Amino acid sequence: MYDILFEHATVVCCDESMQVLEDTCVGVKDGKIAYLGKERADAARKINASGKVLMPGLINTHTHIPMTLMRGLSDDTDLQDWLQNHIFPTEDRLDDGIVKAGVDLALLEMIANGTTSFSDSYFFMQTVAESVHKSGLKANLARSVTNFGQEVKLLDFYSTREEVELYDTWHKAEDGRILVDAAIHAEYTTSESLWRELRAFALEKNLVLQVHLSETRREHEECIEKYGKTPARLFYDAGVFDVKTLAAHCVHVTDEDLALFVEKGVSVAHNPMSNLKLASGIARVPEMLKRGINVGLGTDGVASNNNVDLFEEIKLCACLHKGVSGDPCAMSAAQALRCATYGGAKAQGREHECGTIALGMDADLILVDFSAPHLIPCHNPISNLVYAARGSDVCMTMVRGNILYENGVFLTLDAERILHDFKTNGTDRLFSS
Amino acid sequence: MYDILFEHATVVCCDESMQVLEDTCVGVKDGKIAYLGKERADAARKINASGKVLMPGLINTHTHIPMTLMRGLSDDTDLQDWLQNHIFPTEDRLDDGIVKAGVDLALLEMIANGTTSFSDSYFFMQTVAESVHKSGLKANLARSVTNFGQEVKLLDFYSTREEVELYDTWHKAEDGRILVDAAIHAEYTTSESLWRELRAFALEKNLVLQVHLSETRREHEECIEKYGKTPARLFYDAGVFDVKTLAAHCVHVTDEDLALFVEKGVSVAHNPMSNLKLASGIARVPEMLKRGINVGLGTDGVASNNNVDLFEEIKLCACLHKGVSGDPCAMSAAQALRCATYGGAKAQGREHECGTIALGMDADLILVDFSAPHLIPCHNPISNLVYAARGSDVCMTMVRGNILYENGVFLTLDAERILHDFKTNGTDRLFSS
Repeated sequence: MYDILFEHATVVCCDESMQVLEDTCVGVKDGKIAYLGKERADAARKINASGKVLMPGLINTHTHIPMTLMRGLSDDTDLQDWLQNHIFPTEDRLDDGIVKAGVDLALLEMIANGTTSFSDSYFFMQTVAESVHKSGLKANLARSVTNFGQEVKLLDFYSTREEVELYDTWHKAEDGRILVDAAIHAEYTTSESLWRELRAFALEKNLVLQVHLSETRREHEECIEKYGKTPARLFYDAGVFDVKTLAAHCVHVTDEDLALFVEKGVSVAHNPMSNLKLASGIARVPEMLKRGINVGLGTDGVASNNNVDLFEEIKLCACLHKGVSGDPCAMSAAQALRCATYGGAKAQGREHECGTIALGMDADLILVDFSAPHLIPCHNPISNLVYAARGSDVCMTMVRGNILYENGVFLTLDAERILHDFKTNGTDRLFSS
Repeated sequence: MYDILFEHATVVCCDESMQVLEDTCVGVKDGKIAYLGKERADAARKINASGKVLMPGLINTHTHIPMTLMRGLSDDTDLQDWLQNHIFPTEDRLDDGIVKAGVDLALLEMIANGTTSFSDSYFFMQTVAESVHKSGLKANLARSVTNFGQEVKLLDFYSTREEVELYDTWHKAEDGRILVDAAIHAEYTTSESLWRELRAFALEKNLVLQVHLSETRREHEECIEKYGKTPARLFYDAGVFDVKTLAAHCVHVTDEDLALFVEKGVSVAHNPMSNLKLASGIARVPEMLKRGINVGLGTDGVASNNNVDLFEEIKLCACLHKGVSGDPCAMSAAQALRCATYGGAKAQGREHECGTIALGMDADLILVDFSAPHLIPCHNPISNLVYAARGSDVCMTMVRGNILYENGVFLTLDAERILHDFKTNGTDRLFSS
């Protein structure tokens, strides 16, 4: 007997062939996908999924979720002005209580919009981990480290020590629902002794390493000026890419950089909306895919997006690369959807547990209601998911068979209290003086 | 006594200074905005708009609404393949009953997503007009005309005769809620005798003229090859721009073309998502705005989008032009929102009746619910509307004081019957053989 049986579902598997199964049953048992086929069977709960699409939960490969506190705080300004005069001064006033308020709000938003796993690098990550733990979501969490030229010894530098503590407390918590990654913030905010320490730590512990890479032209070119090589070549030469790396943005990478990604199996977190909004540019994703580089999608922090609706990123990803290349076949709907699911799972080192619908995988599933006018007719479920759907069409979000959200109701988090606390513990305190 | 009084609203006026009024009352009487201020007053109905934003309804300046029938029918293919092998053969099988099914579905989608007026050019426009009439929406409707070199006399050519009949039946119906425009499909599908006839007709009747212009590079360049001039220059020289013109797309226009737009007061319908999806390119909207050209936003038909959610276009418009120019100030949130409201109204010749919130304007209003996690906090209502909101956040749509939609319920259209008829009268018949 299954714990849950979805009946009459249109199943978009997001496997390599992007199979779509019509009128199909999916059985969930002990948190896993235990059945996939036409036979109906006994289950503790049956969910009639007629008129709905069942698909793998979306995976956000690059975000900084406490930044909900700064949503819309400042837009349409130069990146340096935005950072120096708005974001950094606000971040200086953060504390654990304020961050918790921002994180809990972000978790509500992600869950309601069909995200089941995400990769995050920021500060106050113990607080982030505690909230993720309660929420039931999966996450790869990293203490984002900068050293600005200071000499770093892993346990003698405050932020690498926080990273080690995060690892000790949370890595593989809940049987791997939470993983701890390492994170070098970016080339321009760090230096060699940090890379060496985090590289050794990540290799020893077998962690993924997150890094911002060639996001802006300035960053990319100043690196070449300073070191005589691109950020990607610099990290490659320092052995950083010996670690399984998830490189965010990669807007200005060269062909040689891409070859290094291929050689080292570096995954890319593509953040098309954030890159547009901050005027960073457009990453060459079709070229990356052609070379076999794994690409996941990300929203980035909401201060530069300003939401965490991955359906927006999927549609933009599928359309943007056609528009700039002049080639309507530059990126297919199926490719964009696969990036947001399997591509994300692979970037997190989770491709054997989630990102596709197949027997034995974790039941990290979302149900998308196709009954609203904008999803009618359904000539092609993948087309409707990519080009017409929105996060608000998600009617159920499940991680490991545990339903986190259903028909507007949050089942693991107390939404009312979180919305109340966001103001009293979050923005009221952060922006009081 | 007002018919309706909104209380405690955050009002985004979309006037020239993009004023935002906090905790404000808006009174509606006889279909007009009759009060705007802090005083509360008697009203037949009071609506507590606390936590909501009241703004002008969105105006879709370029679409072909019967194409809902073809949503997702074919994507990610070459434009010619898409048109020749998928869209045109399907359009050949349309009839009034099928079109009505597609139109009614589109009206539901537009109303639910906060659109209060739209500009449309297609075939079967009598059918479109009848449905618009019932829906309570505003629209500028045109029989899209092609002649492919055939000699045209206004009343002796089937499609221009249909245009005249559309004018006779529907122009200024419901005191101008429905207006009839003229429409030259595009340069590459028409020739001089058609331009002359429609020009004379539109000038005599004082109509707006809709036209597709320089949407693709191929269209633009083949026109130069054929005539030795750009489509804009060609139409200018033929006197077409003597008519108040709404030119859709304008992706490949030259600086000289823009100067002609300025001289003749041509408005541009910017369709950023459709232009990306069909790989047409990116219109130079910041340059247009800098020159004082009026720009409205459009979704285009859903076969090339694939929805009519103008919030997507607003966000994309605000972000895309930053991303491609490298300038984070290239297009502000306020500019994008103004295009979708006032810019649209002006393009339709309706700027004195709608597009802004001010005393005496038609009460074409939408209420956007700011209580969902993705719209919290609200540091800046314009930022949240542009960068974080979606059509699904619209909780009320009103045209001339008449509520068309409220909290998921359609008040002028029978949604259940329309969804049923869409299949039985629409797609089942269109795709049966």
